[in-house]
Amino acid sequence: MEQEALTGVIEPKTVAVIGASATPGKIGYSVVQNLVNDGFKGTIYPINPGVDEILGLKAYPSIADVPTNVDAAIITIPAKAVLSVIDDCGKKGVKGIIVITSGFSETGNRELEQELVSKAHANGIRVLGPNIIGVLSNSASFNGSFAPFLPYSGKGALISQSGALLIALDAATYTRRVGFEKLISIGNMADIDFADLIEWLDKDPNTSCISLYIEGFKNGRSFMEVAQKTSKPIVALKAGVSEHGAAAAASHTGSLAGAAKVYGAAFQQSGVIQASDLNNLFDRTLALSLQPPLKGDNLLIITNGGGVGVLATDAAEKYGIPLKFAPKDVQAELKKHMPEFGSAKNPVDLTGQAGYDWYYESLRYAIGHEWVDGVVVLYCETAVTNPLEIAQGLKKAIDEAGAKDKPVTVSFVGGEKSDEGIRWLVENGIPAYTAPDLAVNAMAALREYARSRELISSAPDAEFEVDEKLAREIIKNAREDGRDSLTEIEAKEVFRAYGLPTTTTKLARTADEAVELAKKIGFPVVMKIVSPDILHKSDAGGVKVNIKDEQAAREAYQTILDNAKAYKADANIHGVAVQEMAPWGTEVILGSVNDPTFGPTMMFGLGGIFVEVLKDVTFRVAPVSQNQAKNMLGEIRGAPILRGVRGEAPRDQKALAETISRYSKMILDLRDEISESDANPVLVYEEGKGIKVVDARIILKKK
Amino acid sequence: MEQEALTGVIEPKTVAVIGASATPGKIGYSVVQNLVNDGFKGTIYPINPGVDEILGLKAYPSIADVPTNVDAAIITIPAKAVLSVIDDCGKKGVKGIIVITSGFSETGNRELEQELVSKAHANGIRVLGPNIIGVLSNSASFNGSFAPFLPYSGKGALISQSGALLIALDAATYTRRVGFEKLISIGNMADIDFADLIEWLDKDPNTSCISLYIEGFKNGRSFMEVAQKTSKPIVALKAGVSEHGAAAAASHTGSLAGAAKVYGAAFQQSGVIQASDLNNLFDRTLALSLQPPLKGDNLLIITNGGGVGVLATDAAEKYGIPLKFAPKDVQAELKKHMPEFGSAKNPVDLTGQAGYDWYYESLRYAIGHEWVDGVVVLYCETAVTNPLEIAQGLKKAIDEAGAKDKPVTVSFVGGEKSDEGIRWLVENGIPAYTAPDLAVNAMAALREYARSRELISSAPDAEFEVDEKLAREIIKNAREDGRDSLTEIEAKEVFRAYGLPTTTTKLARTADEAVELAKKIGFPVVMKIVSPDILHKSDAGGVKVNIKDEQAAREAYQTILDNAKAYKADANIHGVAVQEMAPWGTEVILGSVNDPTFGPTMMFGLGGIFVEVLKDVTFRVAPVSQNQAKNMLGEIRGAPILRGVRGEAPRDQKALAETISRYSKMILDLRDEISESDANPVLVYEEGKGIKVVDARIILKKK
Repeated sequence: MEQEALTGVIEPKTVAVIGASATPGKIGYSVVQNLVNDGFKGTIYPINPGVDEILGLKAYPSIADVPTNVDAAIITIPAKAVLSVIDDCGKKGVKGIIVITSGFSETGNRELEQELVSKAHANGIRVLGPNIIGVLSNSASFNGSFAPFLPYSGKGALISQSGALLIALDAATYTRRVGFEKLISIGNMADIDFADLIEWLDKDPNTSCISLYIEGFKNGRSFMEVAQKTSKPIVALKAGVSEHGAAAAASHTGSLAGAAKVYGAAFQQSGVIQASDLNNLFDRTLALSLQPPLKGDNLLIITNGGGVGVLATDAAEKYGIPLKFAPKDVQAELKKHMPEFGSAKNPVDLTGQAGYDWYYESLRYAIGHEWVDGVVVLYCETAVTNPLEIAQGLKKAIDEAGAKDKPVTVSFVGGEKSDEGIRWLVENGIPAYTAPDLAVNAMAALREYARSRELISSAPDAEFEVDEKLAREIIKNAREDGRDSLTEIEAKEVFRAYGLPTTTTKLARTADEAVELAKKIGFPVVMKIVSPDILHKSDAGGVKVNIKDEQAAREAYQTILDNAKAYKADANIHGVAVQEMAPWGTEVILGSVNDPTFGPTMMFGLGGIFVEVLKDVTFRVAPVSQNQAKNMLGEIRGAPILRGVRGEAPRDQKALAETISRYSKMILDLRDEISESDANPVLVYEEGKGIKVVDARIILKKK
Repeated sequence: MEQEALTGVIEPKTVAVIGASATPGKIGYSVVQNLVNDGFKGTIYPINPGVDEILGLKAYPSIADVPTNVDAAIITIPAKAVLSVIDDCGKKGVKGIIVITSGFSETGNRELEQELVSKAHANGIRVLGPNIIGVLSNSASFNGSFAPFLPYSGKGALISQSGALLIALDAATYTRRVGFEKLISIGNMADIDFADLIEWLDKDPNTSCISLYIEGFKNGRSFMEVAQKTSKPIVALKAGVSEHGAAAAASHTGSLAGAAKVYGAAFQQSGVIQASDLNNLFDRTLALSLQPPLKGDNLLIITNGGGVGVLATDAAEKYGIPLKFAPKDVQAELKKHMPEFGSAKNPVDLTGQAGYDWYYESLRYAIGHEWVDGVVVLYCETAVTNPLEIAQGLKKAIDEAGAKDKPVTVSFVGGEKSDEGIRWLVENGIPAYTAPDLAVNAMAALREYARSRELISSAPDAEFEVDEKLAREIIKNAREDGRDSLTEIEAKEVFRAYGLPTTTTKLARTADEAVELAKKIGFPVVMKIVSPDILHKSDAGGVKVNIKDEQAAREAYQTILDNAKAYKADANIHGVAVQEMAPWGTEVILGSVNDPTFGPTMMFGLGGIFVEVLKDVTFRVAPVSQNQAKNMLGEIRGAPILRGVRGEAPRDQKALAETISRYSKMILDLRDEISESDANPVLVYEEGKGIKVVDARIILKKK
């Protein structure tokens, strides 16, 4: 049903152009002209009350007047008039409207945009836009836009949040020879968003790679859900890496969560490959739309020149692909297709004499060998070899080897002849580039895709047993107390309800109670003021550590109270927390924010200077599986610390990963309540000895 | 004289081709053909004893037979025959030979190559190559190579260590429209090396940017000296970033010094801009060959589309250019050349309606304004504007503004029409690219160039007073002792001779002496075994810290000796070092290696996990000025620690910079003696309170 409604927008059979014009230069004219010129095979109804005919097509005064039902209405009339045609669209069975018209939320008219969507939905109509270029589909010969032509044909599908860029890229598809089946301008995303279109494109037989130009999601979580389920590669360029939300951050974690980091985490979790820039978006689209993923790590590089071979090796290191020498038997066979001074190591250097035969023979053998997972072929133009011939040799080798699950990317460095070879390769389904690092980067995209898919398809974790009810009870009590943050003791209780190990902390309301609790917990203990009005406990003289006996505990109780009163006379003091003094361990920090785009999001980093000086932290959108959590532990720069340095035993990464996963469940379950939180420090002990949350903070959503 | 000899090779008037052939397909034929076809205006003498004429030119049996003197001989005869023609070349006044022939050191024939150079030098002849493609010069219409044509004309000069790549790039200059005045293949660098050619090209009126493809220098230091003095921008692509020398490293520093890091440091110190890959080498060459450096930080971005504007902003952050809003008056003026919904902030968004006029007006005004240091202009192709017209508007604005010291780079995103605009701009001296990040990267190159030149031209430091004689005395004593490493006490004495503050350390040979020394130094003290046979003192139980009184000192002496003997019965024990216990400070590490390419090289990093886990270190080739040393302090990731974190006072960076500079002088002066060294830890105190080297190690060169 959903799918069908979108088909009506993306590949309609009958289209009305509401605002069609007979005046060249007007958008309403361009749209009709584009439909006609690009060979749309369905029915076109120009709608314009003032004319009888546009470009040879009969025009109708209103969509209500057209003789048949209509799939899609392309709307170019002024914003204030758009609402008035929706009911008529409904009567004509319109499945979706393509609202090119601007002047809605992008200029502040949010209400008008909402009314438009409401009215459309009331009529069973989906809305693409407003404020867009339109929709272009090569397979349907449908140019429902004011972009002047359909893109260079291929298997990519581009969804762009920038209309201007879509028009420019449409033209660029021809000069750069990166083929697209569809270009879709998404504009204000009042209704149809990235998730909707991705879901549709996943079922589109003509699309093999979905490319996104993103400025910002409205709902990051629905995007992630759809992206995770998609069976086709998605490659995204996220524009705008400046920090967001930092000003409003109330926690340590909040101040570290930038848009780029959280988007990056979300892409990784949902199997979306990132592009670093506009050309890279095209380059990666080309590879992902034409080649299978690189499933293993055995990449072979075949070259005719040492120079480009070294550059490709550098690029492999840069893009994280480990290069290994091929096994002896592979080397021995490859040695047959090169002169003596060639090299069968990796890169395999066929030397400058290599022409059609050697390239053909060595590539065919390499792809056919079980050790080889993928091949990057490099060619450096020479005066004595013919790039086009070599291109044809490569194609023949790939076809004959018949290993359709092994990707090949190619670089030809040279002039017009090499470019001709590149064009021929691309037209024949082999991604080819002008420089070795580009071919390696494309292969890296195929590898990233395979790896992220593996992680997504790995078995889900067993469900944790948690006590959500207890956690909510604690929060409710704080709310009833008129507070929007929990005390340390309360926060730890919530943590414990989710199975996070915390230091034992009990509230003492008298010195006697403090002594009793300390005895029960066991000396030495730590004592801290508990007051919702005193956030910076140390500054207030409200913390005493290493309290060793009853007498000291009694004195500490009084000193802390005195200090607290001196610090803030009217502070609401709950009492003094008596806390187990945890043995030394590696300090880490966990935390959460409610990201404006993705909702509850986890942070992990090493404590101390790692977080404070190096900002060495990593993010994941909740929930975080234990496998994902393990990846988090590995991707910070300080990761070796957890694996054990300076002869220390490895830290308990398993316990830490479980803690992250439980924590993420907590912030997701309680997302209506928790705004931000920190567990800082968390002490991590040797393997098998677990972790301990020493201090905890939970800030509630303002209600 | 030097210059003249090289002119004979690079721009000869008379050329002999020794090994000229009448058989198409042979290199000796290609060279003659290229000279003829590419319009060489000088005299060509084909040398071949077997034929009378080649391509209409009279051939001579030997160079001895030609009627005039000869500037350059291009040699294509087999390697073993090359030596036999050198004397005749000498007689004919040949200034340089271009040895295309391969089969010398690259295939192991080092001796033959050395003989060739010796014989050439004996005849007053310089050698380019062997194992090269040749020399190509557009202004001299000289294609003295077997590359099939002269490059697309321009102001770059490319020196390539890979011949294959040079041929491929020659062709690529046409398709990518990056113009080169010269292409020079440098091959085995038996004689003429990068430094020689850079020196010559610096005086070449037709070259405005020198581009290098480097696999490895023979003598990094002479390259640096020449590069520093060069008045033209140099841009280098260094291929091969894998670690070198690590296996042989005897010190901490040695294990951290990779080729990429040391080359990177050397480039920075000598004002050489790095390229990240092959396309980037072309892109940066284009900008550096056509535009002045970006001297200030006030970069304005002018765009017609929000999308490309955001991408350019992201790129500016990525490449380290801080973007600021223009002053109010600039914004007010720019507002006149855009519709109301445009933006005069930075990026300046003229909107998609912007055509010739708005681009022209806004760019002319921006360049003319004193606040603006440089402009990146972005254009995103639309259906209603003409890229070529806009290109012409930009050119007119630049010409009329007349501010020749302000760089402009341009990006046109689009199809064939945009590419036409790009070509027109490049032909008219304005570097233009296909994506916004490329234009920003090009601007970043112009900024890096300005900054590195500023650092190089800053006033030199005052000379340090040092006692080299004393340092050599200490080393000599150790040598006479049959050692190739210094004890800690000796190493510290060498350090002190170069003015490095070290903890006071004295050698005690008896327990009484130890007590006396400790009293003199002042309790508490540290005591350590001194033995050239015990390198890991702690492992041997040879270190005692925090010794507080005479009794403890006496006991420590005996314990350390006993432990040492138990650890290694036959160890040569000098005694026990009694050492001042330095107060706590921020730990840093200094060190040096003798890099195989660049010689004495300094390392600096923060101690502890920064160096051990994060490898957060930076290098400079000695000598290191105090200004350069200050830059080193700023470029490690842990730099904020030195500036003071967590409310701590800033560390004494001035003293640390001076120490680095003195250290670098030490390893340079004593480069014949010192192989590697470490000062680890060095404690850095608050501003004004100096630093202290706590432990020192010097490893001597094996002799």
